Amino acid sequence: MTMEVPQTAKHVYRFDEGNASMADLLGGKGSNLCEMARLGLPVPPGFVISTQVCRDYLADNQTLPEGLEASIKENIQGLEKAIGRNFGSVSDPLLVSVRSGARISMPGMMDTILNLGINDQIVAGLATMMGDPRPAYDAYRRFLQIYSEVVMEVDADAFEKALANHKRKAGVTQDFQLTAEQLQAVVADFKKITKDATGKEPPSDPWEQLMAAVKAVFRSWNTPRAIFYRDYNKIDHNMGTAVTIMAMVFGNLGPTSGTGVLFTRNPSTGDAEVYGEFLSNAQGEDVVAGVRTPEPIARMEDVLPESHGQLMTLAKDLETHYADVQDVEFTIENARLFLLQTRSAKRTALSAVKTAVDMANEGLITQSQALLRVDAEEIGKLLVPQFSTDMPEEILKERFLARGAPASPGAASGVVCFDATKAAELAAAGEAVILLRPETKPDDIHGIAAAVGVITSRGGVTSHAAVVTRGLGKPCIVGCEGLQVNLEAGTFTADGKTVREGDWISMDGVLGTFYLGDMDTVHPTLDDLPEAIELLGWADETRRLGVMANADTPADAAQALNMGAEGIGLCRTEHMFLDPRRLPAVRQMLLNAEAAEVWRRANGDRVFRAESEEEASQAVRDFYEALGQVRELQTSDFEGILKVMGARPVIIRLLDAPLHEFLPPYETLLTELMELRHVSVSLAELQEKEAFLHLVDSLRESNPMLGHRGCRLGLSFPAIYRMQVEAIITAGALLVKEGLDVNPEIMIPLTVDVEEMHRLRQDLSLVAAQVQVRLGVKVHYKFGTMIETPRAALTAGEIAKESEFFSFGTNDLTQMVFGFSRDDAEGKFLRAYIDEGVLPNDPFASIDVQGVGALVKMGVEAGRRERPNLEIGICGEHGGDPASVAFCHEVGLDYVSCSPYRVPVARLAAAQAALAESQI
Amino acid sequence: MTMEVPQTAKHVYRFDEGNASMADLLGGKGSNLCEMARLGLPVPPGFVISTQVCRDYLADNQTLPEGLEASIKENIQGLEKAIGRNFGSVSDPLLVSVRSGARISMPGMMDTILNLGINDQIVAGLATMMGDPRPAYDAYRRFLQIYSEVVMEVDADAFEKALANHKRKAGVTQDFQLTAEQLQAVVADFKKITKDATGKEPPSDPWEQLMAAVKAVFRSWNTPRAIFYRDYNKIDHNMGTAVTIMAMVFGNLGPTSGTGVLFTRNPSTGDAEVYGEFLSNAQGEDVVAGVRTPEPIARMEDVLPESHGQLMTLAKDLETHYADVQDVEFTIENARLFLLQTRSAKRTALSAVKTAVDMANEGLITQSQALLRVDAEEIGKLLVPQFSTDMPEEILKERFLARGAPASPGAASGVVCFDATKAAELAAAGEAVILLRPETKPDDIHGIAAAVGVITSRGGVTSHAAVVTRGLGKPCIVGCEGLQVNLEAGTFTADGKTVREGDWISMDGVLGTFYLGDMDTVHPTLDDLPEAIELLGWADETRRLGVMANADTPADAAQALNMGAEGIGLCRTEHMFLDPRRLPAVRQMLLNAEAAEVWRRANGDRVFRAESEEEASQAVRDFYEALGQVRELQTSDFEGILKVMGARPVIIRLLDAPLHEFLPPYETLLTELMELRHVSVSLAELQEKEAFLHLVDSLRESNPMLGHRGCRLGLSFPAIYRMQVEAIITAGALLVKEGLDVNPEIMIPLTVDVEEMHRLRQDLSLVAAQVQVRLGVKVHYKFGTMIETPRAALTAGEIAKESEFFSFGTNDLTQMVFGFSRDDAEGKFLRAYIDEGVLPNDPFASIDVQGVGALVKMGVEAGRRERPNLEIGICGEHGGDPASVAFCHEVGLDYVSCSPYRVPVARLAAAQAALAESQI
Repeated sequence: MTMEVPQTAKHVYRFDEGNASMADLLGGKGSNLCEMARLGLPVPPGFVISTQVCRDYLADNQTLPEGLEASIKENIQGLEKAIGRNFGSVSDPLLVSVRSGARISMPGMMDTILNLGINDQIVAGLATMMGDPRPAYDAYRRFLQIYSEVVMEVDADAFEKALANHKRKAGVTQDFQLTAEQLQAVVADFKKITKDATGKEPPSDPWEQLMAAVKAVFRSWNTPRAIFYRDYNKIDHNMGTAVTIMAMVFGNLGPTSGTGVLFTRNPSTGDAEVYGEFLSNAQGEDVVAGVRTPEPIARMEDVLPESHGQLMTLAKDLETHYADVQDVEFTIENARLFLLQTRSAKRTALSAVKTAVDMANEGLITQSQALLRVDAEEIGKLLVPQFSTDMPEEILKERFLARGAPASPGAASGVVCFDATKAAELAAAGEAVILLRPETKPDDIHGIAAAVGVITSRGGVTSHAAVVTRGLGKPCIVGCEGLQVNLEAGTFTADGKTVREGDWISMDGVLGTFYLGDMDTVHPTLDDLPEAIELLGWADETRRLGVMANADTPADAAQALNMGAEGIGLCRTEHMFLDPRRLPAVRQMLLNAEAAEVWRRANGDRVFRAESEEEASQAVRDFYEALGQVRELQTSDFEGILKVMGARPVIIRLLDAPLHEFLPPYETLLTELMELRHVSVSLAELQEKEAFLHLVDSLRESNPMLGHRGCRLGLSFPAIYRMQVEAIITAGALLVKEGLDVNPEIMIPLTVDVEEMHRLRQDLSLVAAQVQVRLGVKVHYKFGTMIETPRAALTAGEIAKESEFFSFGTNDLTQMVFGFSRDDAEGKFLRAYIDEGVLPNDPFASIDVQGVGALVKMGVEAGRRERPNLEIGICGEHGGDPASVAFCHEVGLDYVSCSPYRVPVARLAAAQAALAESQI
Repeated sequence: MTMEVPQTAKHVYRFDEGNASMADLLGGKGSNLCEMARLGLPVPPGFVISTQVCRDYLADNQTLPEGLEASIKENIQGLEKAIGRNFGSVSDPLLVSVRSGARISMPGMMDTILNLGINDQIVAGLATMMGDPRPAYDAYRRFLQIYSEVVMEVDADAFEKALANHKRKAGVTQDFQLTAEQLQAVVADFKKITKDATGKEPPSDPWEQLMAAVKAVFRSWNTPRAIFYRDYNKIDHNMGTAVTIMAMVFGNLGPTSGTGVLFTRNPSTGDAEVYGEFLSNAQGEDVVAGVRTPEPIARMEDVLPESHGQLMTLAKDLETHYADVQDVEFTIENARLFLLQTRSAKRTALSAVKTAVDMANEGLITQSQALLRVDAEEIGKLLVPQFSTDMPEEILKERFLARGAPASPGAASGVVCFDATKAAELAAAGEAVILLRPETKPDDIHGIAAAVGVITSRGGVTSHAAVVTRGLGKPCIVGCEGLQVNLEAGTFTADGKTVREGDWISMDGVLGTFYLGDMDTVHPTLDDLPEAIELLGWADETRRLGVMANADTPADAAQALNMGAEGIGLCRTEHMFLDPRRLPAVRQMLLNAEAAEVWRRANGDRVFRAESEEEASQAVRDFYEALGQVRELQTSDFEGILKVMGARPVIIRLLDAPLHEFLPPYETLLTELMELRHVSVSLAELQEKEAFLHLVDSLRESNPMLGHRGCRLGLSFPAIYRMQVEAIITAGALLVKEGLDVNPEIMIPLTVDVEEMHRLRQDLSLVAAQVQVRLGVKVHYKFGTMIETPRAALTAGEIAKESEFFSFGTNDLTQMVFGFSRDDAEGKFLRAYIDEGVLPNDPFASIDVQGVGALVKMGVEAGRRERPNLEIGICGEHGGDPASVAFCHEVGLDYVSCSPYRVPVARLAAAQAALAESQI
């Protein structure tokens, strides 16, 4: 057969004529199928009409170019030969699918038309071929509907209503329950719907069907929704779409036919064995509809051993070719195997890690590729507690209480408790407790530390509860709007169920859901995950960025080491202050700090000696007594942490929190006092309460976030920072005497000007020197600051003159750069900002590169210009967020610090950032 | 007389051999005296030993260069001739002063030795010459002490103690009360002290005294304190000091001698008349000691007409030469006039303005020089109320109550009142009221507006009270620590006095002091100050920077115009909300905003019509009813302001304050509720209170400064901003219909991202368009934003895409850049930071160039890059601070905006900034 085809353009490409690089001309879908064919994979035969044809068609007033129809016919003949059936034949019908496909996937366009080439006669032949009329008529009615919709522009609703009517008449609820006869009636109805709407039935001539479908695909390029989609996504309107036409193959032609899905490795466990499902004598829709239950792929060996063998070989080849675990759809038609699709398999975190490591060890991919294969977040998910079994859906539904924002991953079961102190007591008595509060405050730390999980009805994923639990690696759910807590009655209500304090509940911090009753959980450690250890080892060899951990206790520090931390990037001394056993001494110290400072100034900075300072007031005595107690406690705290960390750096931040955080809330005191006035108490007691209330009032601030905290406290009350430095250097000295090498780094919080650093450094260096002289031991330490105010970042060059290290506190920096209070923003407007796209993401979760990032960059550059060997890191929540880790790598930080449980995430993310850089 | 002097260097310069340009060689003091001599002014004769001699002396192991002594002797002979007395002579003694003086003034060095050349014999001659032994012996004992201290290094304490002993014995308290005989005893004691300390008395040989003094001056260059001073101030250690030796002249040699001080113009009023004091037959110390009361300079004409005439001529010449008002010290010795010093005169604000303008008009200086002569702050001081009379010191002391920080200048008298509402009522009844509170809140605005002045016991100069009163031009004193307010008793106690509510007090906002009782005040306006108007006219011709005012009412706007404002740079709509008559509607609107927004979203943004929206809840109805009321009020507000300002720009900021600022404080409600529970009220009433408390609670924020405010409200509750824009454009349209040209500019507060601007602009432009279509009138308006978060400044390039103007809100920007809460910082730590020099000044008073300024600069550059004609200004408190105005000029802003009373200050400061630039 000879035809005149313009030499300038080839209109149509057989699958074996194209390849993966031809997406511009053949579309994404089309070129991928060509690639599979090129590799010799048994895809059903097919061909692609190029995007050039679409462009010509649209440019030339919707006229198909000359010779196209002939070319299509020629290619259909090719399909007939390849598959051994004929287009339009009643006895051995060839049906085809018709798909649109531009270079870029565009959900705004035409769907696929399956089973094209069918009519009243052919459907009968198909029924004979399948040995069952039901699937044949089912295919026919599906074709009629989709063809009417996309080619003839009939509204879909009428078809859905008609089908629903038939099901109601037949007394069934599912499509597949309709019999062949009933489906024939549906077919008749569908034709009538189309005729009523357009004046004619869908054409019965297969060729007419085919050419009309091709034109419809081309026209679909310029539907309003497609144009809108391209406008919105800034896609070129002149690109045009290709049309892929492929032979339909059938897995339901008898016992030597079938269909299935396989994964080249286990997508749950990562085990290196083919995993999948197979259904004999069936089409893909049967699996989806749940008509029959598929069998494990291994069973295929018994019924279709040859195809099974071929499939196993192909699975291996595919994995080798794509160098990744594949998810393959296949159909066997009369013992002939066809692959319909292959793509990278979705997998669990566990499987992702194991397959990446295995494939690297097998030489299939490089170690670098393995590192890039695993989403850094996934590695974090492996390390949180999980429910040990999959609870059936119905039971979960029945037990469901509420859903909130997932604030810290993990799973836990425990008795619900509404009070932090009671939670701590119950936990001390061996009970697993879930602390449930409207919100948590720094005061509640002992309760949070004792609980197995925390739920709050208010607050966002960066609220106090969320931040603390993430640090502790405990599950947390926040902002549960469906939750009504009645503290007085000791109950809460959710999803219509009322739960009493002391009842068991279970929470899933990954999903943000919680349930009535107890569920089993498991808590993996890195030791349980040998592949993760191996992968992280490669990450450590690859990354340039150091990874440290935030830890406040020796136990945290040990955990951090276990997770691979190279040091402590942030040790918060106020967490040590908040221990309820210590709080009395801490409060005594803080409440008398002002009086003591007045005394100190009047007495020219001399050391206070209780026995000789007879003129000092009781407040001054109380202060120094408490200061001594706190010094002892802090010394042993620091000794514990430094001992665990050995020669690794331990960055200890001096007191940062405002004083009122250590005192009871003003309103609680006010309420107590007002109640007291109505009962008979002594005047003295009342006056004492009033004095205390007045004191707490005087420490209150309108905006504590921007208040008297950080080094402002250090300068107002020098005795406190001196005490802390004395404790740090004493702890270090004791360990050095034991022969240990230690490296404490003293960090000043909330600096705004170099002068603060200059004064504190001068004063505190003297303290450190005195301790070393007294103990006769040299302790190596550094002195540096947090950069957490915009001004510190803007004047970092000056500040670097007095700082050996910088640690960016991007939590506070984010608050100040945006003017967002972390405690308020989430519930009030930030969630809406993110949900509605005003901001692309939560700047507290992932660093805001444009704003906060710009300041970090300026700070790094100015700091290094002044002091080239300045050690620079980040110690906020961002340190464990992969995107933020990548940013930290790019701007050249030395390390990130995050909570111990996020250390593996940061290690992997840092390696990926290094690889991304080397690939540019 | 011939001597060998090395040719390389001249050691000694007579006054008439040097001039003002020789400070390197002759020191600052020496070269100035030379300059006076060069001008032919009658300075006492003298000479200078050069700094080169000092350098040689120190380099050559403390050996005086050869020939120096001879050269000194030669020059002393010159002095003898010039003055007609002889050095070392008993009958006609010449005494000299010896002073150190480097090129740069160094307070760490030797003081002046007066009366050198005296001894036991000479003092007797001096007594004869003076006709009174008392001043002669007084001069002698002063010489002995200072010589012993600086040349012989005897401790000063011993002399002070001895003198005190003599006064006690004589039963007197003042030095001048000692008789000649008693002073002789002092002299004997002083010699003994020196002998006891050093083994010898001060030398009696005048030449020995002189040479020892010269060497001592040279040695003083290298005392530890001088070295430390130079180190600290980075002064070259090799510079060396000069030594000035000058003849002592005496005003106490008889009736043709005398001493005095004159100003070439009146330093209080600026009147162009010589003003000064004269004391016949006296030395300068007599004036200082208050022995006798000087007479007006005019009286001199009677006793010493020739000297008076000479002095008047010199005064004129000096003013012409220095082109500034001079403050001249003179002495007349036996009818011979000597000028001892002349310098620019200190003067009052009034005098500074008048003399500058007069001198420019006289052609003595240029208009530019006149502009630079007046401290811009001074012009502000002229425009605040002042006490009309000078109250005697004793009465002020008696009436004194307390001193706080001067937060807003001016003076006022009124009855004291502790409550804002009561203050408003009293004021409405015609009473002058001073509002005295622990601190003020936005709720108190009606009381502040009604009061003549405000005093707070807490807070700093940037607290709410301070900021609001400065805007209103009323005096304010804050942070009065000596003040105990007892609100329950209705009294306050200060300086031991108890004052009842309703008593009269008077306050001075310049000094920060307040007093019992009523005092008369006057309130000048610009119209009372013709010279100021003239000067400001020159300023307007000179400055490049525009000056606008912050004004919220038509009265403010009129005041702003009177002060020379070119437009309104900030009209705060929330101040309109806070009027107590409006607050009910405002609260009804805000409390139902959430419910209305839920309704709006559900109803697809359609306009609410009370008559047809039957399904809407009561809350939604209440909201729209209140919204309508507020719209009416705002429309007439805006109409009033726009009418006053005519075609000038009026920048109106949409609602900025967090909603809870318009509601009663939570604690007040809590206290009320708790009290209610103990009295018998209906359950319904209790529940209603509880519901209200709950609502107020839900709007509370931990850090309201960083909370749900500004455009965050605008996006959460679109109806409110739409209402405001409708009111603005309606007001504009009504005026345009009347034939007026108006230029409202709509300003969005607290932007952090361009997307906020994009959405609001799209939405609000539509509202503006609808109003214009409805009213059939075109209103010209602009749309822009405040840059008041660091992120807005950092992403200003993006934000400029959606903004026609920027207004830097440097109050909030300063809070966020430093992390300083304006409401808290002052009292807690900021005052200490400034007092102790951690920060050089208050960043809320004067813009922080390093930090905040860096962001402003970035914002300006990025904004202009994107939109070259972007209109940029500043509207915070800084707009009225001269240093900040200079910064705004330097970074190229278009205008500053400040409170109306600061507009003249800004006009002058802007002119000075322009002049400073042109001089570089």
